[in-house]
Amino acid sequence: MMILEGRKLNIEFNVIGSDPQAPASRIADKFYHNKDYKEFVDNCDIITPEFEHVDRRILEYAEKQGKLYPNTKSLDLKLERHREKIYLSDIGIPVADFYVAEDAASALTFSEKFEESIIKTSKGGYDGKGQFHKKKGDNPELPGDQFYVVEKFIPFDFEASIIVARTKDGRIFFNQPSYNYNQDGILLYNYAPCDDYGMREKASVLVEKLDYVGVMGIEFFIKDGKSIVNEFAPRVHNSGHHTLSGSTISQFEQHIRCVLDLPMHVPGLLAHSGIINILGREINDSLAVRILSIPGTLLYNYGKKPLPRRKVGHVNVTASSNEELLRRLLEVKRIIYPEEV
Amino acid sequence: MMILEGRKLNIEFNVIGSDPQAPASRIADKFYHNKDYKEFVDNCDIITPEFEHVDRRILEYAEKQGKLYPNTKSLDLKLERHREKIYLSDIGIPVADFYVAEDAASALTFSEKFEESIIKTSKGGYDGKGQFHKKKGDNPELPGDQFYVVEKFIPFDFEASIIVARTKDGRIFFNQPSYNYNQDGILLYNYAPCDDYGMREKASVLVEKLDYVGVMGIEFFIKDGKSIVNEFAPRVHNSGHHTLSGSTISQFEQHIRCVLDLPMHVPGLLAHSGIINILGREINDSLAVRILSIPGTLLYNYGKKPLPRRKVGHVNVTASSNEELLRRLLEVKRIIYPEEV
Repeated sequence: MMILEGRKLNIEFNVIGSDPQAPASRIADKFYHNKDYKEFVDNCDIITPEFEHVDRRILEYAEKQGKLYPNTKSLDLKLERHREKIYLSDIGIPVADFYVAEDAASALTFSEKFEESIIKTSKGGYDGKGQFHKKKGDNPELPGDQFYVVEKFIPFDFEASIIVARTKDGRIFFNQPSYNYNQDGILLYNYAPCDDYGMREKASVLVEKLDYVGVMGIEFFIKDGKSIVNEFAPRVHNSGHHTLSGSTISQFEQHIRCVLDLPMHVPGLLAHSGIINILGREINDSLAVRILSIPGTLLYNYGKKPLPRRKVGHVNVTASSNEELLRRLLEVKRIIYPEEV
Repeated sequence: MMILEGRKLNIEFNVIGSDPQAPASRIADKFYHNKDYKEFVDNCDIITPEFEHVDRRILEYAEKQGKLYPNTKSLDLKLERHREKIYLSDIGIPVADFYVAEDAASALTFSEKFEESIIKTSKGGYDGKGQFHKKKGDNPELPGDQFYVVEKFIPFDFEASIIVARTKDGRIFFNQPSYNYNQDGILLYNYAPCDDYGMREKASVLVEKLDYVGVMGIEFFIKDGKSIVNEFAPRVHNSGHHTLSGSTISQFEQHIRCVLDLPMHVPGLLAHSGIINILGREINDSLAVRILSIPGTLLYNYGKKPLPRRKVGHVNVTASSNEELLRRLLEVKRIIYPEEV
């Protein structure tokens, strides 16, 4: 999606990875295999990751050459959850009470300090993977000895997120926050605008402390009108995909403008705007037609194989109020997931 | 732009033409040379031209196979202006008074019937080429014997256009009309919405009579609150490019949905929305940065060589009122064309 948005500005995109048939690789100007990372970095002016779990050699070599945005400091925190949690806590950003456990047994011991907890593997967690919701006294089987984060379960009212962009000279731009509905740790649908609940202030602190450049998505729990950070994503974020329509500028173009030092916009919503994700379904013609029949919908089909729970596309929905928007989102939800009705 | 919009829906695009380095060819899944038109048509499900002056063999072969939208009837009218004028007049659509001349001498003779006239070559006219503005008694040098259309010059108040879409089963969808500012026969900037002035009704008659399928742009002269047709374009139209942002759906996606029989939207503006064309300028970094500094602007750089008066890009502008929009458009105009200030 970043490439498609950047085509408008006539930017060349080289992609590095392990799969020349991945969606981004297929539409890139040139594809490089991970092993050719030096050639790749040498041939690019700016390197930006679309995902935090990429070959370290690329990032280190790119940063050494002054081409990497955002910096490895920001990306590294995402490799292990406990480092992210400790960092957020250290810079004074409220997060759920937590312990860091160095093996499975201590994770279970720590979790007994909370009536209800979430035990998360420190590595490899993504889209709800490696997470265990536990009540005091329960004894779930954890996946072996490794680092864990043991978090107090927050009975939040709802989840929300904000997309923030920071330029090389430190200017900060906020998108309207969105209300997010997650299912089993994966965003199912969201819509904007929603109220602030202190999210902008916390986002500012985080991107400034990290000397972050580019677009970042930050997820929050909202409880009794206050926000605490769940986690951040050092990249464009699923909850900002709705900016592809119904906004003055997309999060993808904002990110491109940040890392290329182009003029920035204060992003604005032109409508009430949201998305619903298509998870693990085949987007055949029949499904596409039924989705597109709902007013205000645009379909983004990533052309990916529908593995279980995999994001294979999303539907952008615009409407003239959040009520109408939610109605349309739920209509599309019934079409994509009829068995859940 | 059609390909970039269609990528969202995961549609494959094959392109046929004479230049494998043309912008559309470069991002196509596959490029065919004109001589391979049979293989091209055989390998596509639907064929739609992005320009009326394409190799006739492709169109005829595609229509024979039931794959061509819009039909050759609509496209053929655009090959010679006098046929378009006669057709419009025959179906009762108001156009400027005109004569058809079969050579240069009779064109000049006919033109003397009007105080002020426009003499247009019947073939090859595009973006203001082959047009001669003449006052009674003048004797301009015309480019040799050929068919001409001699039109009464209309001292119109302004120009406007409407983007209309018609489906295979005859449903018609209108975009908001736009006010257009042309310079030497080429659109310089435009903005929507503008009032109707009877444009929707005339557009309906035309697409129905032609049994047209797809998006059509129709240009009008507006005088004393009434509209007369200047000409139509059997394709997405420059005056509809603003729908790429600030609209619920773009004209490109509307066209794709028409010709592929996908569900249609009643297109809606999400903001006051317009464009300014970049004609014959090199879009270097400095120009891009100055344009992008104006609030509400998005730059579409086609990556074309800046030949004189050639459209090499456009700037989309959104705003919260037509007044603010016009101010921004004129600011961008001063940046692109500083010598005209």
